[in-house]
Amino acid sequence: MFPLASLHAEDGYDLWLRHAPLEGEALARLAALDGAIYAPTAHDPTVAIAVSELRTGMDRLLGQPSAAPLVILDVRVPGQGPRRAFSLDCDGSAMRSHGAFRIAGTGDGIRITAAEPIGCLYAVYAVLRELGLGRDPAMLALDETPAMPLRMLNHWDNPDGHVERGYAGRSIFDWWHLPEKLDPRLIDYARANASVGINAVVVNNVNARAFMLEPRYIAKLKRLADAWRPYGIRVFLSARFSAPRDIGGLATADPLDPVVEGWWRDKADEIYASIPDFGGFLVKANSEGQPGPQDYGRSHADGANMLAAALGDRGTVIWRAFVYKAEDDTDRTMQAYAEFAPLDGQFASNVILQVKNGPLDFQPREPFHPLFGAMPKTKVMLEAQITREYLGQASGIAYLAPLWDEVLSADTGRGGTIAQTIAPVGMAGVANTGSDRNWTGTHFDAANWYAFGRLAWNPALTGEQIAREWTAQTFTRAEAPLEAIVQMMLGSRETVVKYTAPLGLAHLMGTGHHYGPAPWVCDLERPDWNPCYYHRADASGIGFDRTTTGSNALGQYAPSVAEQWADPASTDPRYLLWFHHLPWEHRIASGQTLWDELVTTYDQGVLETEARAQGWATLAPHIDPERHAAVAADLTIQRTEARWWRNASLSFWQSLNGLPLPAGAAPIPESLQAYQARSFPEAPGQ
Amino acid sequence: MFPLASLHAEDGYDLWLRHAPLEGEALARLAALDGAIYAPTAHDPTVAIAVSELRTGMDRLLGQPSAAPLVILDVRVPGQGPRRAFSLDCDGSAMRSHGAFRIAGTGDGIRITAAEPIGCLYAVYAVLRELGLGRDPAMLALDETPAMPLRMLNHWDNPDGHVERGYAGRSIFDWWHLPEKLDPRLIDYARANASVGINAVVVNNVNARAFMLEPRYIAKLKRLADAWRPYGIRVFLSARFSAPRDIGGLATADPLDPVVEGWWRDKADEIYASIPDFGGFLVKANSEGQPGPQDYGRSHADGANMLAAALGDRGTVIWRAFVYKAEDDTDRTMQAYAEFAPLDGQFASNVILQVKNGPLDFQPREPFHPLFGAMPKTKVMLEAQITREYLGQASGIAYLAPLWDEVLSADTGRGGTIAQTIAPVGMAGVANTGSDRNWTGTHFDAANWYAFGRLAWNPALTGEQIAREWTAQTFTRAEAPLEAIVQMMLGSRETVVKYTAPLGLAHLMGTGHHYGPAPWVCDLERPDWNPCYYHRADASGIGFDRTTTGSNALGQYAPSVAEQWADPASTDPRYLLWFHHLPWEHRIASGQTLWDELVTTYDQGVLETEARAQGWATLAPHIDPERHAAVAADLTIQRTEARWWRNASLSFWQSLNGLPLPAGAAPIPESLQAYQARSFPEAPGQ
Repeated sequence: MFPLASLHAEDGYDLWLRHAPLEGEALARLAALDGAIYAPTAHDPTVAIAVSELRTGMDRLLGQPSAAPLVILDVRVPGQGPRRAFSLDCDGSAMRSHGAFRIAGTGDGIRITAAEPIGCLYAVYAVLRELGLGRDPAMLALDETPAMPLRMLNHWDNPDGHVERGYAGRSIFDWWHLPEKLDPRLIDYARANASVGINAVVVNNVNARAFMLEPRYIAKLKRLADAWRPYGIRVFLSARFSAPRDIGGLATADPLDPVVEGWWRDKADEIYASIPDFGGFLVKANSEGQPGPQDYGRSHADGANMLAAALGDRGTVIWRAFVYKAEDDTDRTMQAYAEFAPLDGQFASNVILQVKNGPLDFQPREPFHPLFGAMPKTKVMLEAQITREYLGQASGIAYLAPLWDEVLSADTGRGGTIAQTIAPVGMAGVANTGSDRNWTGTHFDAANWYAFGRLAWNPALTGEQIAREWTAQTFTRAEAPLEAIVQMMLGSRETVVKYTAPLGLAHLMGTGHHYGPAPWVCDLERPDWNPCYYHRADASGIGFDRTTTGSNALGQYAPSVAEQWADPASTDPRYLLWFHHLPWEHRIASGQTLWDELVTTYDQGVLETEARAQGWATLAPHIDPERHAAVAADLTIQRTEARWWRNASLSFWQSLNGLPLPAGAAPIPESLQAYQARSFPEAPGQ
Repeated sequence: MFPLASLHAEDGYDLWLRHAPLEGEALARLAALDGAIYAPTAHDPTVAIAVSELRTGMDRLLGQPSAAPLVILDVRVPGQGPRRAFSLDCDGSAMRSHGAFRIAGTGDGIRITAAEPIGCLYAVYAVLRELGLGRDPAMLALDETPAMPLRMLNHWDNPDGHVERGYAGRSIFDWWHLPEKLDPRLIDYARANASVGINAVVVNNVNARAFMLEPRYIAKLKRLADAWRPYGIRVFLSARFSAPRDIGGLATADPLDPVVEGWWRDKADEIYASIPDFGGFLVKANSEGQPGPQDYGRSHADGANMLAAALGDRGTVIWRAFVYKAEDDTDRTMQAYAEFAPLDGQFASNVILQVKNGPLDFQPREPFHPLFGAMPKTKVMLEAQITREYLGQASGIAYLAPLWDEVLSADTGRGGTIAQTIAPVGMAGVANTGSDRNWTGTHFDAANWYAFGRLAWNPALTGEQIAREWTAQTFTRAEAPLEAIVQMMLGSRETVVKYTAPLGLAHLMGTGHHYGPAPWVCDLERPDWNPCYYHRADASGIGFDRTTTGSNALGQYAPSVAEQWADPASTDPRYLLWFHHLPWEHRIASGQTLWDELVTTYDQGVLETEARAQGWATLAPHIDPERHAAVAADLTIQRTEARWWRNASLSFWQSLNGLPLPAGAAPIPESLQAYQARSFPEAPGQ
């Protein structure tokens, strides 16, 4: 047989599901399994997929179709048939449900048990992952239950194919040709999601178009829902709150108007008639120009509860807490808490409040959002951002598991970590997928999709564990290069923090497209859109005073938390300028002045991008040429951008403080005016 | 070896360069060739590509690497070494140049001769095509010279990735990550182009952004030019005429201002310093809001000649004749001729005038443009549209070679056919490529890319020959399904004419996106944007009188041509309503009334889409499942759209003429108001 595959280089399309052939002892162990699969409920579509994935994955791990073709048997008669086999029991009535599974390797093969078919599918992906990592089949012993019920992707994809804050091409959803034409890519998308346990997808942007609630779109959505159902994925829609006016012909969208209530009830009925397991609505209301209940003098709870009543016990309303107002001159980071905390206890039982990890907006680093733990009578879920709007977009590497680790393990001071707070509910990630062949723009951004799913399944996993799994499945199992890649990944987000937003700074990026540095911007219509609003730098100092002498955003946190951040001396340097305005000459823990520390930190960031590019170059013998070249280009771009951020930022800070660069620091090659003049009208994702 | 390829279905990415394994006698004949390739100038990058393509292509046609690995030898010593081999002589000094080649199959193997390396590359693609069609290697005998020097694609791709009138995803150009990152896809794009002889590419939209002339874009363009040079492809840029003002800091873009002249000369020098073989500029000036020399009271010739002087003998200015004015109430189809014909003789020798095939705008059918043949002292090239802006976009099948055949073979009455008129210059096609995996949105649209290149190489090829070649290389060589597919293709453009614009009607599509029927639109700001401007239908009749009793557009044609279209009785029914306004009850050649004929024609169009969908369904055993399903979906969509066009159009004509449908015609299922209410704000390509 001719290896036609050799004509297509590694292009990243297979993601972490490459299942590259094993070698040596691991291969020998796997080859000793014979090919039978026992799957008593194989007529279930999900079990059929599990069997197919297992068979294909095994073939690929073995590097060839198994000598004896795989046999699928409905029933295994003890003592008869192949001995070293797979058996799938997918309706283990004694098992926990919701995707839980057990995997036990024995001398008799590998036994998978689950309460439901989806548990068997999850188990098959887990088996392939473990075997792919070289584990001994006989020693497999997993007993897993997902940590939270809702493991969700939010797509900021518009129906015309544009992806807001997307850096990987167009939307993967070709709405225009649905329902007739379903891109096979959407099946591979479901496979990738299911393989890491993602079980819910909001298919459209939170800045929603109302026409996606019209019948022609319900037909399209039904085709997706039908295709994804066997993979355990429920579809959700972002709903525009003004839809009853926009497309319903009503004069109002007032949530307390019975006609409006009826319109939404009818709309929900219409959707459920096509999609019986429709998940529900995600709503961005009264935020950044979106319509909402406050347009009618009603509260967020009024709006959410009206929609929740329309869905009934069939579905869920996910209401975003990301709100801030033009007319509100409160510290922007305080507005969500101020608006929502008083509503605790007022939301219906099928309403979930979706809260971003930090109180501003997905910055490279923020302290955790004070709403976590502050609404004990409300279902609260975490919203993370997988797409790197503020972390370099599609340049270089920024592995985000450490960021999410930081958030999930944060102690709210109100009875537990954020991981514990959201465990009964779930977490959502703003997707980073697109039409690019490798799905995510850069190859390493697939690690963020993977890590998001793995952490939602089990927040106790470390970023390092996940990086190791992903790298072995994606690039190489060879010890030395694997370890080198994992180390490159682990520090990568911190590198971006260093060269873009050191010491707790935030929101310094270019206007609109959010690309590149623009700390000098201070003339935008709304104060809280301006970088200068956040850094508050002048001749004497820099930083945002959020203590009692300033905005007192600290007051929104539990006292034990607020206390650690109240004094610059006890504040973690990573949050220093988030909470404090300090003189440039202020001495910080390292013994340096704040100014010298800033410069040092920017320079470290730049050096780290250089080291990463050099390190990657040495890996050429271990990585296929196409992916190696692509990542090398990504890292070259990132190195250039890091220098630009460092130079432009320092040039601006110097224009305010007049301080010289510390001895030894590289000079700034261009003028501040030159950096300010750079313009990128075509920057992606806006 | 494990066939990993089996995990990736046929997805169309390989286009007509699949080189699927031969079978039977054809395979045996090919296998009898031994593997040596003699290429005395193998150090030339183009020859190296030719050798590599030949080797890979042969391996694929053989279905396996040849038993004896291919050997590349610089010099063949007669009487020694393998006998049945390939030899490439790529600097045959006695040969014609410009890509010409000879291929001779002998008992001694296959001998390729060319004057230049690019001729050898073209020859290799021709050899692979011929072998792929099953031809006997010993009988190959080709002696080819391209029919015209410029075989060009015009990309209407914007720097932000949006493609105007693009229906295949985003732009293939990821400008944002150039020059660091070159998508390997752009090499495959060059291969596909070279394989059909395309040798020039305008990389950006004629509605151009000036910043693409800035240094950061010249660096990006240089990377493309370097990558494509070995494939014989020269890059061109669409230039915005006002660039000296937009990005040059000048107060004017007056082409006669010496400072403006100097700015463009410096810009050209800057480009040529990076790209020594830069092709030149394509300019859309004083048309549809674009700036141009008329803004300063200068003529098109003044503008074009100024740019031509800046390029000097290094490059070419391609000036578009597609102009029409808001303030001009002349029949829009007459304005280009009126404006340009008087300028004949005034253009510099390195200016080419680019004229669309018809005088309106790429309609499903138009009579040829009267400028062809009318400017004997001017270099005139043809502009065709490969992307199907007005022919169904990315639905169904519309094979365009018959449309281009129709144009190329039209006799201008001024000394030859259009093919003869443009032979000294060239032809351009508006590209239909995008980021979709199969490049062109639908699989069958790749045939239009292919056919455009083949016709530019040799306009004497028939649409049927080209369809047969393309189908054999793309889908199947098996006689019966191949023939069925070719027949489906051949009538497909005529089908679209029938259900959208029968009997010479034109410009009846939806506003803006140009999707779907909207003959009722009559309220747009400019008269000549309205469908009603073109059909002129009312209670008594329909059609545009362009005879002496009307606009006399006929007067722009040679008398021999005008004569045949002057009388409805002698006018080809395909152009009837283009040139004549006729009563609904007018009896036409078929003996039917015009109204009955219209209805019949719409109905035939619908029937043909149904027949095509059914015909394709029967081909399932012969086509891989992924591509079969995709085309089936395309044809389903087209069938739906054909009914919609038929019903909406007839409903509107009936609202004017009050006539009943002829006996037996299917009733119209919805009201005119319902058709008029359909809205598609997210339609692609606008």
